[in-house]
Amino acid sequence: MHSIVIVGSGNLATQLAIQLKKNKFLIKQVYSRNLNNAKALASLLNTQFTDNLSKLFDADLIIIATKDSAIEEVLTKINSTSIVHTSGTTSLDIFKNRFKNYGVIYPVQTFKKNIEIDFSKIPICVEASNKSFLSDLISLSKKLSEKVIEIDSHQRKKIHLAAVFSCNFTNYLFTIAYEILENENIDFSILHPLIQKSINNLKTNQPNRIQTGPAQRKDLNIINEHINLMKSKEYLEIYKLITNYIIKRNE
Amino acid sequence: MHSIVIVGSGNLATQLAIQLKKNKFLIKQVYSRNLNNAKALASLLNTQFTDNLSKLFDADLIIIATKDSAIEEVLTKINSTSIVHTSGTTSLDIFKNRFKNYGVIYPVQTFKKNIEIDFSKIPICVEASNKSFLSDLISLSKKLSEKVIEIDSHQRKKIHLAAVFSCNFTNYLFTIAYEILENENIDFSILHPLIQKSINNLKTNQPNRIQTGPAQRKDLNIINEHINLMKSKEYLEIYKLITNYIIKRNE
Repeated sequence: MHSIVIVGSGNLATQLAIQLKKNKFLIKQVYSRNLNNAKALASLLNTQFTDNLSKLFDADLIIIATKDSAIEEVLTKINSTSIVHTSGTTSLDIFKNRFKNYGVIYPVQTFKKNIEIDFSKIPICVEASNKSFLSDLISLSKKLSEKVIEIDSHQRKKIHLAAVFSCNFTNYLFTIAYEILENENIDFSILHPLIQKSINNLKTNQPNRIQTGPAQRKDLNIINEHINLMKSKEYLEIYKLITNYIIKRNE
Repeated sequence: MHSIVIVGSGNLATQLAIQLKKNKFLIKQVYSRNLNNAKALASLLNTQFTDNLSKLFDADLIIIATKDSAIEEVLTKINSTSIVHTSGTTSLDIFKNRFKNYGVIYPVQTFKKNIEIDFSKIPICVEASNKSFLSDLISLSKKLSEKVIEIDSHQRKKIHLAAVFSCNFTNYLFTIAYEILENENIDFSILHPLIQKSINNLKTNQPNRIQTGPAQRKDLNIINEHINLMKSKEYLEIYKLITNYIIKRNE
């Protein structure tokens, strides 16, 4: 596979296209339903652009890097031999009975249009409709990253679910922590070294083995003091629910 | 202040004593109720040790770095002019009417006995019973860290509470993510780059401004799919509670 058409012009589409071009793939064309976005990405890649799906060029591979909810509609308008999407949650089956070779290339990372990112350490999950296409997708992905893994649609959904707990929900806990400190005029950065240390520990340990804190010690004095410090129903509900589960696991 | 007695031989006591010694303070003695622990830390510091609080040496400062529940008992057996504890949650008032100069030195970090840590970036929260002692504690702390902040007992408790949300509870969410992946025979390290990226983003942004994910987008299709993927009552309760609060904030 050498020539590629990119469908989409968002964060992932942009960063993936940049990396593919860097690795000597030929990006023949960029599609976006918004012509200005298509034009902007195409000019970055020095290539062609369109906002009309019926005018897609022939290419060895079409990569759909739109949001999940747009994939189905885009598919119905595309004729191609080989096609992939890049979603963590959309099943491989969405392509079934429509294309000869179809698959998924899912990089486990978040992206920003204007922040270039080193792909070499980003895990790329690959799935395909047949062995020969799988091997094509693996060799393409290996040009971008050292960590290419064969993952089926069910596993991919579980990875996405785990990412929601690990990143979206943790960020929400950081939001609560931020607000607790903001109320006392304390800058959230006071917690940065502690948070980074916890993440460093996570890289070399199973998380259940490095659980610390009052719930883990079942320190009911501190827990009650914390409960009395909070007025927000929301903080209290989350504090109590997680604290109780941590305590329960140690019983 | 030059000469110091350390009460305690745990993770924080050990790392704090090492840093103080490195910075030319004289650690005169180490106390632990467990003689072997006292001896081990003293030998690391090349100093004296005891397991008897009535035999503490005179020193410019006594630092109590025991666990919270031991502080009260330890205090009743100590005579000293100047004393501090190192706790995030115990109030300054615990020293009241017992000592001339008393205070708190609370480093916002977790420690391990056998892993030396660079103190220079660790925020140290300082509180004292009088201005002159406060200034002594600040100058001592500034020899260890670039980030010394005056923080009262109430604020200190809020910092500790925020740390529980940011580190203990997030680690619990990592435990759940670990288990979700383990069930599919997928190594948790697949999420390391994504988690590190989220933390990097946190260092330069307010957490509420970088919230992403299906709850933030109110993507009910994905949320329902996730709910159907989970069988554990625990995972479901936590997933639904946090998801609903994220959705509610955007309404």
